Amino acid sequence: MKKILMSIPNISEGRDQNLIEEVANAIRQVEGVKLVEISPDADHNRTVFTYLGEPERVLEASKVMFLKTTALIDMTKHKGSHPRLGAVDVMPFVPVQGMETKEAVEISRQFGKFAGEQGIPIYYYEDSATRPERESLPNIRKGEYEGLPQKLQDPDWQPDEGSATFNPKSGATVTGSRYPLIAFNVNLNTKDIKIANRIVKAIRYINGGYRYVRAMSVPLEEKGLVQVSINMINYTKTPLHRVLETIRFEAARHGVTIAGTEIVGALPLSAVEEIVRHYLQAHDFSMNQIIEMALIE
Amino acid sequence: MKKILMSIPNISEGRDQNLIEEVANAIRQVEGVKLVEISPDADHNRTVFTYLGEPERVLEASKVMFLKTTALIDMTKHKGSHPRLGAVDVMPFVPVQGMETKEAVEISRQFGKFAGEQGIPIYYYEDSATRPERESLPNIRKGEYEGLPQKLQDPDWQPDEGSATFNPKSGATVTGSRYPLIAFNVNLNTKDIKIANRIVKAIRYINGGYRYVRAMSVPLEEKGLVQVSINMINYTKTPLHRVLETIRFEAARHGVTIAGTEIVGALPLSAVEEIVRHYLQAHDFSMNQIIEMALIE
Repeated sequence: MKKILMSIPNISEGRDQNLIEEVANAIRQVEGVKLVEISPDADHNRTVFTYLGEPERVLEASKVMFLKTTALIDMTKHKGSHPRLGAVDVMPFVPVQGMETKEAVEISRQFGKFAGEQGIPIYYYEDSATRPERESLPNIRKGEYEGLPQKLQDPDWQPDEGSATFNPKSGATVTGSRYPLIAFNVNLNTKDIKIANRIVKAIRYINGGYRYVRAMSVPLEEKGLVQVSINMINYTKTPLHRVLETIRFEAARHGVTIAGTEIVGALPLSAVEEIVRHYLQAHDFSMNQIIEMALIE
Repeated sequence: MKKILMSIPNISEGRDQNLIEEVANAIRQVEGVKLVEISPDADHNRTVFTYLGEPERVLEASKVMFLKTTALIDMTKHKGSHPRLGAVDVMPFVPVQGMETKEAVEISRQFGKFAGEQGIPIYYYEDSATRPERESLPNIRKGEYEGLPQKLQDPDWQPDEGSATFNPKSGATVTGSRYPLIAFNVNLNTKDIKIANRIVKAIRYINGGYRYVRAMSVPLEEKGLVQVSINMINYTKTPLHRVLETIRFEAARHGVTIAGTEIVGALPLSAVEEIVRHYLQAHDFSMNQIIEMALIE
């Protein structure tokens, strides 16, 4: 199985179409990398790029896009409603296929080293964090760009790479490996939000449920249903089918059935592979049996 | 969704590695086509090539491989245990993704016309057949290469394309569109072959079961199980989950459970999509949500 890594950098510019296009072209020029999505947000004044490919190619694209973005954006002029620390605000690496977390962490470290050498303070987060209080992005971002000069003087917030000197033009960048998250909603055939609340407590980690499940309840007034809205934060260790079947038997206690589910956005093929293995009882099923897989470059 | 067509030509040479490699290279030189597999069989003296891509590219590759193969193989010298009519014995086209059967039939007709113009008699089979008795490949192949001179004089066996003149060097070629077949085995927690036999009769077309199911029972002596071995000949009209759940409730009648299943060989992603939709009740799930799909060229 080929190794596939995804990167989803967020940059602090969501209005200047020419600038966004220049950054996109820098990514496109890296061979072996596929730029999948560009999502500019004018209110947030922020753009998210999504690209993927083999790890070394994605690392190369991330370096190239970092150089281009920090050359073009001047943070002293940036305004927007979304919290941010720098021009390349976050550079997440997500292992999609055939990779261990530690390999993605290693890539993020190589990126961080490179970015630090450009004179920009770098913080590692999530699986690449160097200490527990740096795991959470909001934690690192507290104080934002405007608070950086002070933060960089705090002994607790010395950067992981690069110097602690404030860089007014580029700010700071957060990078690291994080697991692909699957957003999974389960609709219940009832209007009783209390039943959804009980199920939320049954499945989510903070109330004694599955370790890699975050969940909340949502009334769906128009449909006359309630929803259990789930973030699956590690689908290999807490798989989708297990959460779905748990919801099914907990709902049955109230005489309630599942009306349907939604997978919101993207998911890796290996999550689909596990669904097929479980429900077909096809224990040896492999994604490589899928004809179209032969076309993946 | 991109259109993807697969072709799986069988040629009458399975021993001469140089010849096989020359044919493979001819296919590889067609841009936009991926040669996935080459399966030579020395006993049958026959090789199967599998390649896929967008329909026009696959048509082009099939023309190129047809010219190369008919130039290299001399059927007057061919011996092998597998029934065959010609140098390029069969050229099947299989719609894998985003295509209707009629589009694949049209591609096979374009191929047939081209091949006929090279002075080789062409018969259309399966979904491209021009009359019912030509749907079945074994039917067309009856009498084999050696019987061709006589067959071509029979008014009932005039070729669909090309002249009825016997071509000693190349024989004849059968081409057409056929649906992707999924080989699906279901193992039952019993040694009683009679139970497997009853289930086979419950699901297969010839005994009153599902229209697109062929099935037989197989004892698995070593595992102490019996198997229902299934060919799903149209998985969009008779989907896998329906056959599996039917086997489950028919087996339950005897107190027997499903031990496991096997998907043998390849299946199209749209079959996987339907499995996810059914078992997760994710009615709107689309294969385009799978991250790796972005890498398909």
